[in-house]
Amino acid sequence: MLRLPLYVRALSQLQAEGTDVVSSHQLGKRLQMTPAQIRKDLSYFGRFGKQGRGYKVQFLLQELGEILGLDIRWNTCLIGVGRLGRAIINYPGFAPEGFNILAAFDSDPGQVGTPIRNLSVQPMKDLEKTVTDREIVIAIVAVPAAQAQMVIDQLVKCRIRGILNYAPVAPQVPMDVVLRNIDPVLSLQSMTYYLRDQTEAEQASVKTTGRGKGPQPARR
Amino acid sequence: MLRLPLYVRALSQLQAEGTDVVSSHQLGKRLQMTPAQIRKDLSYFGRFGKQGRGYKVQFLLQELGEILGLDIRWNTCLIGVGRLGRAIINYPGFAPEGFNILAAFDSDPGQVGTPIRNLSVQPMKDLEKTVTDREIVIAIVAVPAAQAQMVIDQLVKCRIRGILNYAPVAPQVPMDVVLRNIDPVLSLQSMTYYLRDQTEAEQASVKTTGRGKGPQPARR
Repeated sequence: MLRLPLYVRALSQLQAEGTDVVSSHQLGKRLQMTPAQIRKDLSYFGRFGKQGRGYKVQFLLQELGEILGLDIRWNTCLIGVGRLGRAIINYPGFAPEGFNILAAFDSDPGQVGTPIRNLSVQPMKDLEKTVTDREIVIAIVAVPAAQAQMVIDQLVKCRIRGILNYAPVAPQVPMDVVLRNIDPVLSLQSMTYYLRDQTEAEQASVKTTGRGKGPQPARR
Repeated sequence: MLRLPLYVRALSQLQAEGTDVVSSHQLGKRLQMTPAQIRKDLSYFGRFGKQGRGYKVQFLLQELGEILGLDIRWNTCLIGVGRLGRAIINYPGFAPEGFNILAAFDSDPGQVGTPIRNLSVQPMKDLEKTVTDREIVIAIVAVPAAQAQMVIDQLVKCRIRGILNYAPVAPQVPMDVVLRNIDPVLSLQSMTYYLRDQTEAEQASVKTTGRGKGPQPARR
């Protein structure tokens, strides 16, 4: 499921490039996945292509968009209007994809009332009423790590159903709330496993052949 | 593999809270996963716990850290010093985790030579020499979408082995280069599948019971 948006992104690019039909091999090359994995992922959601014929880009794009709910507008709010929060409000990529930030909150009284883009920062005590009145479904959390769990607990109480968390913590939410973490350190750490393996393979090859393939990281 | 850093994050928090032993149930609750999935993930890398005894937090943390290469320093560079790039250089979370940004590059001659933190922005023509001389293994890409693939091709030529891409595109890299994308829209889109399902279940329940559980998103 986490991969489907990546398919959509790649298919959109293919469509923009004028490609009508794409094979699982071509998609796999673009997404660093095996053709078998691609076929397996897509077959889980229905029969999108015919054996040996490839996938019709426009049709697959539309189907995946519906599966992912990309045809829906999602009312969204932001908690925390520090440097990161302001960058998020000003990020031009959300609205065209259906994610509309309708309200912004901050616990700092000095921030309350400040205008940011087309919004006025609201105090946290307004959270529940605003979420209900504006039918907000998703919250973006950009508060310091120490406050994140408390803020997320408040959001859960207000019946927010999806949370995009930028704080570098692993917050706890009930099973019926969907949480995604945006954390560059986690992404880097998920690479180093593969890089370390390459490094060790190369170090082994240094031992036998006397040369490696590239620079080596240093042990800490 | 993508989940291991999340385990490390959760275990670090448990350790900070003074927890010595944790069960797969407790870990699962924290990470929104089933205990079976946790046991399966961890058993893939070795026998970390005994049936019914739980996992020793400190031991598991150390083992996973070694598996992920978290004990290694990774020399890193940044491409693109716009608003996002500057936020990345000033992000305090990288260095303590072993990711040291040693150089910053930009294609804009007006940016070259500008001091940012302890670095001086370099022109793109210095890329290959600096990557080799400073033994840089990972690059962080924070350039506009239209330039991302070109910049990433240059990085691949310089034998960069891991790329953290912030541009909202799905770039293509050879199989032996590890790519991770930081893209809040992709993360939001990977939630909406689940939210849409809930929404449709609730709409069904509205039909039968006359009331829903919370606000509904609107079709676009």
